[in-house]
Amino acid sequence: MPDKKDHVYGDHISARFNDELTELKTQFLNMGGMVESQVERAIEALTNNDSQLAEDVRQNDKKVDRMEMDLDEEAILVIARRQPAARDLRLVISVIKMVADLERVGDEAKKIAKMAIKLSEEGQAPQGYVEIRHIGQHVLSMLHDALDAFARLDSDQALRVMKEDKQVDQEYQAAARALLTFMMEDARNISRCMMVMWVLRALERIGDHACNIAEHVIFMAKGEDVRHSPMEDAERVVGR
Amino acid sequence: MPDKKDHVYGDHISARFNDELTELKTQFLNMGGMVESQVERAIEALTNNDSQLAEDVRQNDKKVDRMEMDLDEEAILVIARRQPAARDLRLVISVIKMVADLERVGDEAKKIAKMAIKLSEEGQAPQGYVEIRHIGQHVLSMLHDALDAFARLDSDQALRVMKEDKQVDQEYQAAARALLTFMMEDARNISRCMMVMWVLRALERIGDHACNIAEHVIFMAKGEDVRHSPMEDAERVVGR
Repeated sequence: MPDKKDHVYGDHISARFNDELTELKTQFLNMGGMVESQVERAIEALTNNDSQLAEDVRQNDKKVDRMEMDLDEEAILVIARRQPAARDLRLVISVIKMVADLERVGDEAKKIAKMAIKLSEEGQAPQGYVEIRHIGQHVLSMLHDALDAFARLDSDQALRVMKEDKQVDQEYQAAARALLTFMMEDARNISRCMMVMWVLRALERIGDHACNIAEHVIFMAKGEDVRHSPMEDAERVVGR
Repeated sequence: MPDKKDHVYGDHISARFNDELTELKTQFLNMGGMVESQVERAIEALTNNDSQLAEDVRQNDKKVDRMEMDLDEEAILVIARRQPAARDLRLVISVIKMVADLERVGDEAKKIAKMAIKLSEEGQAPQGYVEIRHIGQHVLSMLHDALDAFARLDSDQALRVMKEDKQVDQEYQAAARALLTFMMEDARNISRCMMVMWVLRALERIGDHACNIAEHVIFMAKGEDVRHSPMEDAERVVGR
């Protein structure tokens, strides 16, 4: 990957630059792994009525926040020190953007954990757990695949994640409708059903953030911004 | 604002660089103005039961999305061409971050507009409009003040916006609780009350994004990241 620096300073600086980019990627993937685990454990806490685990997830969110700030700082330092161009600059900027998505996924996990704690106090909701487990698994696999697509700069996989998001939205709409119908029939449980509603919404948002990450992977790999575009445009860019 | 470039290329390039930074700021403030107007009109459409206006807001969101993509592209070009350092680099990176917040505020305005359309079809909800107007005004003034703080790089004002966010959260909690109580007492209107609930949530999120913008203004002005910190830390950084 020859760039201006190669000619000016030789290979030594360039190798260190590569190390820094690799380090940035690794840090990002570590944060991704942490956030994945937060979502997984928040869902587990909720469906198993485990308030101890939920409290643990809530506490852990501070680590996610710390990782966001460290990664942003590191990314800005890399730009200041190395003045990356083209593909390298796209990588660093995309990391800065995606870090915000990961942090928000962490926030959604914290919200789910809070609902788990409330529901363990008030008694489990009468409805919605099957849907939470199902949509939860779906968005977890989207998040995993999006991070994996980033690790391997695999725009085909990123495209698949983007396509999953439509399905998750439909699953969410169906689950929210069913829950609403249940609430109308049994008004005594409205308060607890609302908590399930917030959890469903949080899961749907996690799917959106996984989709955002996937869009950035395509930008990094192909240099084209496919956000807010019809799926056919993204397919054309990826070459499907 | 002397930097490395001054010595290498002289004042001409430096002046052009300043023009580019000013242009980036102006574009960002234009997007901010557009988004403010989207939120304002979405609330108006909802409270006045005006589905035509709501449809207009929905359509306009595409322009907001376009502005996000243009601004991101411009910011990356500025980094690639000018290799800014220190304060200038913080400005450009912060714009890249804040643009994502503005785009999401635009999304929330679109969600409110969608609820306005649904409610105009199903008949207005029996509850919650006073709260929507009140919290709506509050977050609109936060958003306006945050953009103004950016325009004048005024970290005192940014700090005030951050403090408002706590109040908005309390107003939102109170409104959501009242609405939930109403839903329990009158289960026939649950479906329309849920729409009001989503609107309240969207408004609360807009407050969060205004707060994020304010945090970035402090970062730009002071070089310190006050996200996820206790308010006292932000006060110390700003010098209050």
